[in-house]
Amino acid sequence: MLSELPFTLPALRQAYADGVHPEDAIAEAFRRLDGVADPGIFIHEAREAALAEARALGAPDGRPLWGIPYAVKDNIDVAGMPTTAACPAFSYDPGEDAFVVARLRAAGAICLGKTNLDQFATGLVGVRTPYPVPNNAIDPEIVPGGSSSGSAVAVAHGIACFTLGTDTAGSGRVPAALNNLVGLKPSLGLLSARGVVPACRTLDTVSIFAFTVSDAYEVFSAAAGFDAADAYARDMRLGPLARLPADVTIAVPDEATLETFGDMEQADHFHADIDRLQRAGVTVKSIDMTPFFDVARMLYEGAWVAERTAAVGARITEAPETLHPTTLAIVSDGLEKSAVDAFEGIYKLQALKRRCEGAMEGVDLLCVPTIPNFVTRAEIKADPIGPNARLGTYTNFVNLLDMCGIAVPTGSRADGRPGNMTVLARAGEDDRAAALALTVETGLLGATRWLRPAAALPDAQPRDDEIAIAVCGAHMSGLPLNSEITSRGGRFVSATETAPDYALYALADGPPFRPGLVRVGRGAGVAVPVEIWALPQSAFGGFMAGVPSPLCIGNVVLQDGTVVKGFVCESAGIEGAVDISALGGWRSYLAHGTSPEAVAT
Amino acid sequence: MLSELPFTLPALRQAYADGVHPEDAIAEAFRRLDGVADPGIFIHEAREAALAEARALGAPDGRPLWGIPYAVKDNIDVAGMPTTAACPAFSYDPGEDAFVVARLRAAGAICLGKTNLDQFATGLVGVRTPYPVPNNAIDPEIVPGGSSSGSAVAVAHGIACFTLGTDTAGSGRVPAALNNLVGLKPSLGLLSARGVVPACRTLDTVSIFAFTVSDAYEVFSAAAGFDAADAYARDMRLGPLARLPADVTIAVPDEATLETFGDMEQADHFHADIDRLQRAGVTVKSIDMTPFFDVARMLYEGAWVAERTAAVGARITEAPETLHPTTLAIVSDGLEKSAVDAFEGIYKLQALKRRCEGAMEGVDLLCVPTIPNFVTRAEIKADPIGPNARLGTYTNFVNLLDMCGIAVPTGSRADGRPGNMTVLARAGEDDRAAALALTVETGLLGATRWLRPAAALPDAQPRDDEIAIAVCGAHMSGLPLNSEITSRGGRFVSATETAPDYALYALADGPPFRPGLVRVGRGAGVAVPVEIWALPQSAFGGFMAGVPSPLCIGNVVLQDGTVVKGFVCESAGIEGAVDISALGGWRSYLAHGTSPEAVAT
Repeated sequence: MLSELPFTLPALRQAYADGVHPEDAIAEAFRRLDGVADPGIFIHEAREAALAEARALGAPDGRPLWGIPYAVKDNIDVAGMPTTAACPAFSYDPGEDAFVVARLRAAGAICLGKTNLDQFATGLVGVRTPYPVPNNAIDPEIVPGGSSSGSAVAVAHGIACFTLGTDTAGSGRVPAALNNLVGLKPSLGLLSARGVVPACRTLDTVSIFAFTVSDAYEVFSAAAGFDAADAYARDMRLGPLARLPADVTIAVPDEATLETFGDMEQADHFHADIDRLQRAGVTVKSIDMTPFFDVARMLYEGAWVAERTAAVGARITEAPETLHPTTLAIVSDGLEKSAVDAFEGIYKLQALKRRCEGAMEGVDLLCVPTIPNFVTRAEIKADPIGPNARLGTYTNFVNLLDMCGIAVPTGSRADGRPGNMTVLARAGEDDRAAALALTVETGLLGATRWLRPAAALPDAQPRDDEIAIAVCGAHMSGLPLNSEITSRGGRFVSATETAPDYALYALADGPPFRPGLVRVGRGAGVAVPVEIWALPQSAFGGFMAGVPSPLCIGNVVLQDGTVVKGFVCESAGIEGAVDISALGGWRSYLAHGTSPEAVAT
Repeated sequence: MLSELPFTLPALRQAYADGVHPEDAIAEAFRRLDGVADPGIFIHEAREAALAEARALGAPDGRPLWGIPYAVKDNIDVAGMPTTAACPAFSYDPGEDAFVVARLRAAGAICLGKTNLDQFATGLVGVRTPYPVPNNAIDPEIVPGGSSSGSAVAVAHGIACFTLGTDTAGSGRVPAALNNLVGLKPSLGLLSARGVVPACRTLDTVSIFAFTVSDAYEVFSAAAGFDAADAYARDMRLGPLARLPADVTIAVPDEATLETFGDMEQADHFHADIDRLQRAGVTVKSIDMTPFFDVARMLYEGAWVAERTAAVGARITEAPETLHPTTLAIVSDGLEKSAVDAFEGIYKLQALKRRCEGAMEGVDLLCVPTIPNFVTRAEIKADPIGPNARLGTYTNFVNLLDMCGIAVPTGSRADGRPGNMTVLARAGEDDRAAALALTVETGLLGATRWLRPAAALPDAQPRDDEIAIAVCGAHMSGLPLNSEITSRGGRFVSATETAPDYALYALADGPPFRPGLVRVGRGAGVAVPVEIWALPQSAFGGFMAGVPSPLCIGNVVLQDGTVVKGFVCESAGIEGAVDISALGGWRSYLAHGTSPEAVAT
């Protein structure tokens, strides 16, 4: 039944493989939209265009997002649709796709239309729009979240498989938390800002809403690409999603700074989520969040609001009536700020950055609740600013600190509201954040009754910027020199064996005792157990510097015929060594005795 | 005769080794100051304190700057001396040394006092001071240059061996050019700003004046060190000064944008300097300087002037009479700039950065005249702003673009005025800029009759962040795989031989034809000619990835017994190879014939 088809990438692909045509999925998307009957989700519905596009797709062609229905926040250009930024008077016909939309189109995705937002992406609530306010998909009493309100609600109802949002203060994460979704906020500069209406140009990024981490990350990978025409684009490589190394350390807010504004459910649920991680082997370190909160406050209370003022421009003074009153009040604030304020803010941020870096020392990732508590539409009606600011407690500091993050649903809280957590990482470590997020996400999908698919976590593979290395001795997991690899950011990939072309010797010197792997000829030796580790290429030189004679890094043939770099031994170096080829590897040898003498005798 | 002792590091050290005591050198420094009879050089003379400090030194103790006389621009704190920034009303007693001064004190240097400057380091002329204006040491009709006027003049007369300046717009380079000196402007963040009066905090750096590149770089190395308490400090490693690789490419302004405001001598002299470099083997590429000049203009015409306004603070409105009228006029401008202006400036700079990066593609260094032409005191009297702005033509863009640079004297122009050039490099490549500058500096020292000492250029050595690698075959200079090293930033270090422990084989496969170096035992083989190259550690992984079986990177013993990483060959890989040990190395083998077969038959 198409009406029950989960709009996740695996489910849609399976359906297409089973003969469903994307045109039917697009029709179903609009049937679902009609069923929800919420006129606040879309600002522009592209019903006919989307159906026509789907029709024109023909047969599956292997493109990664072939026929996948998605929607776009209405501050991102899509050719053929007006861009409004939720300000009708601002509306323009963009003529061409934003860079990221062009990438998604090229990947085969079908755009359903443009979604509602807090005007000019200024807000975390989703009610600051002259269009009808979209209903929160989980509970209409709470705000839908913003600024990417329509994008979140559209996914939560299963209308779109994924949507694009933008995120400056948390607009890609807060609505995800409020609608039980994944919200992926990339490192700044990884998704081009070309064709996106700016909010704060130095802090903006496009973001992705989806049901699962895996879906979000796949869309992210498809949309990413260096855009030389975007002055803020960064040419950073995006790693594939893969298992985390075993020894991850996360920071979490300490008791004094786990701010939930009195929402005990939120604190309890977060503690339970962290306990889960701890049981899974993650090391947890409590940190004082004060410097992060100090940074967060700078976004609206400091000079950065002037970036919004710059983005909205002359309209503020020349046509204020065309702006939402709350938006007008906020962006007008920026007119009062001086260049001196701006630079003093920049100095203060730099000093706070140092304090935050200090707090993150020795820590891989920072885990926080995505929101401190929930905000109702009644509360925001009574005070349009205060509760909005509260919602940014754990999001406002992130872009100012040049971090990336991913908001994930963590199952229902005891009161039925969606549990939420955000995993934050340093710029460029989007893959790490997503990898931990994979182990955190749980519960039903969005506002649907669909079950979360098991994460098909790919095996770890060396990335392009890593070098795979076969180790057969003291560098293996748990052995004395393993830290030579892990301290350099090395990751375990797999355990395997060499081709049967080798002899293994226990070398004469030590400790540390080391084996020597010597190639003796095709099929003329034994298969030696090895571990494959992936080392960052940039760290390889430092690793190499510590490889003593007679060991070398050469090429090792594995049992499946592939060749990886690995430890081999100069033949001249086996003088005085003991041939332990027959023992079945270094670990077996160690089990026999701890020194070459022990075997020799 | 002490009165004729050049105050360079080598000459002072030799004199101290010969029995001269630093106290006598310090006394000589003040005799020279008295002889020059220019009350504008120093704001605070520390005659007695310096003599007492020198007296207390005792015997030479090996510290790198033991007994070396220097002076400090009066916007940098020295314990026991007031800091004025050339604004008497601003004067304060700092209590402790600036971070860099503390480093120099620890290295044994003796501070003679605090030098005059353009007030609050705002200016490139040296006349914006309420104290007497120092005379240019070469020609009193031209301005001394600023803002580090006194620091430059003090060295030029041989009063100090080196001085500290600061550099935001060019204050460490322009006075160097005008007084025939070296002016080293480090990458931002390498010299701590703690204890330095800010001008533009995001763009300021301490700088060094000296007679020679080698002296300036030595002082720089002594003063540098990561200061965690300076929010703008960067933890970058400073490489030692060493020979440049042979294949350097520099950019120079093209004919259309070599701006000298009609000073033909300046253009001719610059062309002659570039011709010298070209004859020395440097590749020269002409570039359009327009985007760089666009950046330069932003420093005073854009919002960054508000950084100066922020630095001077309430004094601008509350006690304007305490400011130099020109300084007041400039820093007041910043009051008019809005935060919107500031952010719009930041956006514009980001876009221009991209254009400048594009112009620098494939280029190692950028060489420009330090100043476009000379400015007289009469001109600046008639117009205090315009000629000052002109002086910043080739300096104002540098810190905004996060580049480092070193201004060097290039001998007298035909009209007797000092020739000048600045070598600019990307952030962190201070060593490269200085290495090229070494080959450019020429002529007498400052305003003295002292001859320039021959640069005792140290042999290239692998740095801590490089890895030395012995190559014995196709990776050697001029051979087919050498680009595997040079394209990764590898530098030639030396040509030598292995210990006589090796056999050399011509391997069976190819092209490219490769040798295999196999260790056969101590003294049991031949000494094989090798070249040592230094590869950045961070590039080693990429290099390693391209090393094919049967070659490995292992440890190679050199003739002097040292061990370096290098290519060795698995013994199993010499099947079908030809032993060419007797031929005296790979180059000799290539001279015999181009393939293994050619030798084998």
